[in-house]
Amino acid sequence: MSVLDVAGQRAETLVEALPYIRRFAGKTIVVKYGGNALAGTSSHDALALFAEDIVMMRLVGMRPVVVHGGGPQISELMAKLGKETEFVDGLRVTDAETVDIARMVLKGQVNPQIVASINVHGNYAVGVSGVDGGLIRAKAHDPRLGFVGEVTAINADVIEGLLDNEFIPVVATIGSDETGQAFNINADTVAGAIAEALHAEKLIYLTDIEGLRSDLQDAASLIRQATVGHLDQLIADGIIAGGMIPKVASCQQAVRSGVARAHILDGRIAHVLLLELFTDDGIGTMVVPDPVSDSGVTQ
Amino acid sequence: MSVLDVAGQRAETLVEALPYIRRFAGKTIVVKYGGNALAGTSSHDALALFAEDIVMMRLVGMRPVVVHGGGPQISELMAKLGKETEFVDGLRVTDAETVDIARMVLKGQVNPQIVASINVHGNYAVGVSGVDGGLIRAKAHDPRLGFVGEVTAINADVIEGLLDNEFIPVVATIGSDETGQAFNINADTVAGAIAEALHAEKLIYLTDIEGLRSDLQDAASLIRQATVGHLDQLIADGIIAGGMIPKVASCQQAVRSGVARAHILDGRIAHVLLLELFTDDGIGTMVVPDPVSDSGVTQ
Amino acid sequence: MSVLDVAGQRAETLVEALPYIRRFAGKTIVVKYGGNALAGTSSHDALALFAEDIVMMRLVGMRPVVVHGGGPQISELMAKLGKETEFVDGLRVTDAETVDIARMVLKGQVNPQIVASINVHGNYAVGVSGVDGGLIRAKAHDPRLGFVGEVTAINADVIEGLLDNEFIPVVATIGSDETGQAFNINADTVAGAIAEALHAEKLIYLTDIEGLRSDLQDAASLIRQATVGHLDQLIADGIIAGGMIPKVASCQQAVRSGVARAHILDGRIAHVLLLELFTDDGIGTMVVPDPVSDSGVTQ
Amino acid sequence: MSVLDVAGQRAETLVEALPYIRRFAGKTIVVKYGGNALAGTSSHDALALFAEDIVMMRLVGMRPVVVHGGGPQISELMAKLGKETEFVDGLRVTDAETVDIARMVLKGQVNPQIVASINVHGNYAVGVSGVDGGLIRAKAHDPRLGFVGEVTAINADVIEGLLDNEFIPVVATIGSDETGQAFNINADTVAGAIAEALHAEKLIYLTDIEGLRSDLQDAASLIRQATVGHLDQLIADGIIAGGMIPKVASCQQAVRSGVARAHILDGRIAHVLLLELFTDDGIGTMVVPDPVSDSGVTQ
Amino acid sequence: MSVLDVAGQRAETLVEALPYIRRFAGKTIVVKYGGNALAGTSSHDALALFAEDIVMMRLVGMRPVVVHGGGPQISELMAKLGKETEFVDGLRVTDAETVDIARMVLKGQVNPQIVASINVHGNYAVGVSGVDGGLIRAKAHDPRLGFVGEVTAINADVIEGLLDNEFIPVVATIGSDETGQAFNINADTVAGAIAEALHAEKLIYLTDIEGLRSDLQDAASLIRQATVGHLDQLIADGIIAGGMIPKVASCQQAVRSGVARAHILDGRIAHVLLLELFTDDGIGTMVVPDPVSDSGVTQ
Amino acid sequence: MSVLDVAGQRAETLVEALPYIRRFAGKTIVVKYGGNALAGTSSHDALALFAEDIVMMRLVGMRPVVVHGGGPQISELMAKLGKETEFVDGLRVTDAETVDIARMVLKGQVNPQIVASINVHGNYAVGVSGVDGGLIRAKAHDPRLGFVGEVTAINADVIEGLLDNEFIPVVATIGSDETGQAFNINADTVAGAIAEALHAEKLIYLTDIEGLRSDLQDAASLIRQATVGHLDQLIADGIIAGGMIPKVASCQQAVRSGVARAHILDGRIAHVLLLELFTDDGIGTMVVPDPVSDSGVTQ
Repeated sequence: MSVLDVAGQRAETLVEALPYIRRFAGKTIVVKYGGNALAGTSSHDALALFAEDIVMMRLVGMRPVVVHGGGPQISELMAKLGKETEFVDGLRVTDAETVDIARMVLKGQVNPQIVASINVHGNYAVGVSGVDGGLIRAKAHDPRLGFVGEVTAINADVIEGLLDNEFIPVVATIGSDETGQAFNINADTVAGAIAEALHAEKLIYLTDIEGLRSDLQDAASLIRQATVGHLDQLIADGIIAGGMIPKVASCQQAVRSGVARAHILDGRIAHVLLLELFTDDGIGTMVVPDPVSDSGVTQ
Repeated sequence: MSVLDVAGQRAETLVEALPYIRRFAGKTIVVKYGGNALAGTSSHDALALFAEDIVMMRLVGMRPVVVHGGGPQISELMAKLGKETEFVDGLRVTDAETVDIARMVLKGQVNPQIVASINVHGNYAVGVSGVDGGLIRAKAHDPRLGFVGEVTAINADVIEGLLDNEFIPVVATIGSDETGQAFNINADTVAGAIAEALHAEKLIYLTDIEGLRSDLQDAASLIRQATVGHLDQLIADGIIAGGMIPKVASCQQAVRSGVARAHILDGRIAHVLLLELFTDDGIGTMVVPDPVSDSGVTQ
Repeated sequence: MSVLDVAGQRAETLVEALPYIRRFAGKTIVVKYGGNALAGTSSHDALALFAEDIVMMRLVGMRPVVVHGGGPQISELMAKLGKETEFVDGLRVTDAETVDIARMVLKGQVNPQIVASINVHGNYAVGVSGVDGGLIRAKAHDPRLGFVGEVTAINADVIEGLLDNEFIPVVATIGSDETGQAFNINADTVAGAIAEALHAEKLIYLTDIEGLRSDLQDAASLIRQATVGHLDQLIADGIIAGGMIPKVASCQQAVRSGVARAHILDGRIAHVLLLELFTDDGIGTMVVPDPVSDSGVTQ
Repeated sequence: MSVLDVAGQRAETLVEALPYIRRFAGKTIVVKYGGNALAGTSSHDALALFAEDIVMMRLVGMRPVVVHGGGPQISELMAKLGKETEFVDGLRVTDAETVDIARMVLKGQVNPQIVASINVHGNYAVGVSGVDGGLIRAKAHDPRLGFVGEVTAINADVIEGLLDNEFIPVVATIGSDETGQAFNINADTVAGAIAEALHAEKLIYLTDIEGLRSDLQDAASLIRQATVGHLDQLIADGIIAGGMIPKVASCQQAVRSGVARAHILDGRIAHVLLLELFTDDGIGTMVVPDPVSDSGVTQ
Repeated sequence: MSVLDVAGQRAETLVEALPYIRRFAGKTIVVKYGGNALAGTSSHDALALFAEDIVMMRLVGMRPVVVHGGGPQISELMAKLGKETEFVDGLRVTDAETVDIARMVLKGQVNPQIVASINVHGNYAVGVSGVDGGLIRAKAHDPRLGFVGEVTAINADVIEGLLDNEFIPVVATIGSDETGQAFNINADTVAGAIAEALHAEKLIYLTDIEGLRSDLQDAASLIRQATVGHLDQLIADGIIAGGMIPKVASCQQAVRSGVARAHILDGRIAHVLLLELFTDDGIGTMVVPDPVSDSGVTQ
Repeated sequence: MSVLDVAGQRAETLVEALPYIRRFAGKTIVVKYGGNALAGTSSHDALALFAEDIVMMRLVGMRPVVVHGGGPQISELMAKLGKETEFVDGLRVTDAETVDIARMVLKGQVNPQIVASINVHGNYAVGVSGVDGGLIRAKAHDPRLGFVGEVTAINADVIEGLLDNEFIPVVATIGSDETGQAFNINADTVAGAIAEALHAEKLIYLTDIEGLRSDLQDAASLIRQATVGHLDQLIADGIIAGGMIPKVASCQQAVRSGVARAHILDGRIAHVLLLELFTDDGIGTMVVPDPVSDSGVTQ
């Protein structure tokens, strides 16, 4: 294919993306990027692809916000330091040393890695954590578990300031209480709370599954679209369970609070963000509000 | 190819365009669109493609300005009205009736056609002519030729206001003097003068030739890049002549006044604007400044 | 009279205008200027006087918007082109060629004439039509009549942008649908719709009658002031009829939607706009809202 | 004359003022209003006329600043209080009590009188004196004369803030030193210094003479226009003397520092400000810069 | 104590003030400064201390507004001028001459004194009276008493403009009616009305008493805090009487209209403003809103 | 001492600080906070005192920027991880793992500790490192030493954005190159480069020495003030040596580039920042520009 043909095809493709670009111009889109995605062997390449998607979103006029965790990386450093996890009544305890390690890893290792990958393309990204500008105020979830926190308030001033200055905020999900004590908080929950506080257009979870299924054993049972009410049912029926609960509950909470759409996407697909944003059908599972005058369930 | 594959290819292509999008974000780009392009049988399709390119430029953050003429359309209406052209010493005279017809066609027919094509995609384009906000101040070029004008001043306030309000200005090249008398002015010249007044990054002429040639008979002699000095030589040698003179002289004048690059492109190629903007090599002929400390000619 | 006396009288006159100037400072005033006014033998002088009034309004701090039609000019060009009007069931049809001619005349002839007359005084006026910035969205009024449109939406962003940049918008009343297809729309109706969209203080129709009469045969029956309810009665009684209906209905609609006052003035009187604006009694017919707690009719 | 005729004449007159209104839109004009003008029997009427002129200037877009003294009023209060003036070497001394009386009269009597007259027309005027916002910094002119001050610096922030908020500043010419000690300062000098600090377009002195004369005894010798160089000559020749010196020197200083025009007008003529601003010939004496490449004297 | 120790202590003290500084940053605080405070032998020193407090408030980010009267100073000038007070039915009459004297003293003597004291520290203060920008619109309280006014409207634009430009407004409490006629108005009432118009955080009266007492004869009965309802009771019981009524009524009115706290402080204590603002307990009497769901009286 | 007396003393002290507060209002002050200060046994208290000073600076209107290193904390984590330092030619090498550890400690441990201490007082501080918004662009200092970086460019946009939004930036001194590779950079050097880029008023180093000495053995030889030229001499003479070199060179470089004053203070003194800012004599060593027309040395 000649250089001209290649360029011609590129032009056609760009033009096809026009209506999608137009639809999301100026909209805030919160993307939860999982720690798993950064931990694998091909993590560097995956991160580079992810960074391209985020920069493209910003260049075509969206306001992306990245929220990330980093469980595997925390475990890795704890192992290196010979730190063992305590348990109380069978539950994992986050002691003071552990939350310091978590903060060190999330803010000092995972966060700058993501920022650096984005900034290969320009001075776009700025990393923050929950203590910066009082972004995530937290308290202990259960005193017996130590410094595992739950969100009590989001103060989004620092993020909005960065967005208005055309930066891309990258958020490490460490919160703090009024004394400055750090808490480790579930990143899925934080992503939802931030989307809500920013009145985001979309909340997107990049995961390592294809989407939600109505039958866990059946790949063909992928749920393309679900109302928040439908998800209540699926949780009640035990079809959504385990680690998916915080994601799904955050999707529900965000959509109930005014976020237009929440998505659970397969982060292992290259450029999955652009795929979702630039395809009519979309991919993965999309969560939508319940119909206004209707108790029914859409599927 | 599956839907996912198509979308994947689209994502890849978008990502490949990233560095080009970044480079021109916030830059003003003046595009001269020829009346010929609107006159042919396939003109409607060509105009639709052109409109897509302009909207895409705007959506990825550029500030495009469209300048157009409409010679064939003027001739057509004159023919319908049975109006014959006068000559003085063999030169075509623009009498009062003719300039009124020209204004009617350019502002009332060609301009809204272009505006409407762009606005299929949204409320982007706003048409103006030289009398609006005093944009193009003109005087008679040669009194014997009547109301053929030359530019005496550009007052770009109205265009800058529209750009700042995120509109796409579409300019019909009718100027006026201080009494409001209309003048018909060469659209190529106006495009250059506006690019200069706006301190544009690029001035692009869409023509019906492939580009400049160093040997008119030899398609292989296409000049890919020329300094303004080189063009002086080609004009002196008679290689650039006739209708190309105003375009080339406007390119030279614009580049000498600070416009970074001027381009002569083949408007018959689909999406030629995006091709030029999103390809390293570019296409057609690019005019660049003379090297600073050097009398040489680049090719 | 000495130079000093003349100047002294001028000073006195200016000072008498003080309270009127103060009252309308910063207010938006939409003026419908009729195509008839431009068609007569003394049209050039009338236009010059009108332009002076508009510029004066702008200089003393009002925000004037001019809306115009151009029926006689359209008919004239159709005649020159040998284009005959078709009729369906006795109604005049606007076919594709006719609406193109209308657009050409309104946007390409009448509009720049008005703009040029105003701009003799400075770079004030900018002409727009309904397609510019999606200003007037229209649809077919009655499919059998072709491209006669009715307003479906006004998007006043382009006008507000021009007013905020201290320009005087001059609007040609050609609308378009979402495909860019042009429609010819009654200019009286458009003027009212724009006044409503801009939350204008006043809507003024310049006509070739003295004002509304309660007895068509009796010049002494001129109605100086009428509530919108009173006008309903006059229409029901057949006293307001024919071409006056769109004007009167637009006055009623505008006043019902929050425009404080609507006026039907005699455009043949020199400086009639300044007369209306700078006299306590006013002239012509003024339309005011119905009294709030009252079903009565004011006269 | 009918109501319509009167209104028509008013409209004509307004339109004649158009070019003058346009010329001074947005321009800062400093007007020195003399204490004498406020002291006479018909002072109330004169002040009302003056207030109308100032409000009109503001309504047509100028930025007027009023500067005033109040010598006669100070003398009057001193007389009532039985306070006698001391002399040193034949020169009048301003002791502490006298400067307090001056401040009380200027800021507490004359200034609010002018402000109130203007504000009959709306909430336009705000009175300030030299101590407000550090507007006029002063020091003793000659220690033997006590608290007679000369200007050491103008800090125009408070005036510019008021002008930007669309108020009309009215300035009482009491200055103060860094300890807050008040000084009485020649109001003519202050007016010039403020015009200079504001980069005013015009500095206008309202006096009780017709203008400067080249022969004091000959009313026909009124000087209509003089360069600053010409005035040096007239001072050297003793033709300009006494109380006119501070006015003329301030005119010269202001014009030399970039104020375009300075004027000495006869404040006894009704609406003399509008006369000057809305007449080509102007009245009184106008001071203009020296010709650039010329040592000559213009008349 | 060494220089370092002194500085160390200073640092400690500043740090102790931190929470108070933070609490009031950006808040508007209206301070009524009594004419009495300016009349005594040590008035100069007291004024200097007061000025320091006001400047400190401004420098740590508050928006202070000073309102003052000047009864003793008015009486003093009236005495000097041999002007005697008339009585009607035993009530003091303010005739035209008296209100002129009041204006002269308040605006021309007391106001610039306060402004000058503040401006020893920088160009902070700007004096205004009720006529400036139409700040205080007034009418006669009782026609028999002449020009004693009551507030009909506050137009705070001029004060808000000054605050936004980071000036400290100092208000002389002379109002005016729509003809510009001056009225002398109780300064306590004006202070309350201005606090209300500005939605101030605090209204503070500096008086020459320690605070309100529940038993006038018993210094130990100082009321530290009272609800507005409690004050109604104290007035009904005759415990609050005489000159305290306007202050207390203004406190009540202001707190009822949304001012968070009103204070009656002893202006004879050095730096009493900073004491109140930087102490948890506060001093003097603080007026707070009635409890929302409770008819009770707090003490 | 009574509560009132304590408060009174506090008021006096605040008032004494007035001129210093005024002098630095709106000024940017860069403070280098050493990692040593955070490492000691009383580090928590010292950090709390430091945070109070920084918040006080912000509340009285300065724009503080904190820059910090964290050498001891890095060594501590390396020891825990059993990581040994390599040497090349006797110089310490920073390999890839080491720079990752440094980043983790600086950005993930020291930085949030400082941010949290400041934010006990409100949502003031926001932590950033060199990769955020491309703040610190770096390259290898000496390839043999690995990822020890030197500053190639400072892009202060992110810091200026935070300051304009009224946040306090806290900077971890990890830089990165255009590929996103992290480099560990001397924090003293970074502090100077940032002060220069921000056109700061002051650059302050908090150290664990009293200041510079002219005789290292003699505590009495403390240098209170030195010109940059004098410091050249002291370096040449070997009096300034070792770890002080980067601090002193950065002071010199910053002052030569327009920073008005640089200071070397003893961070072990409580509230040393407020002491320096609120004392005429200051403490520690102050570096000032060379006298303009003079080769001399000031001491």
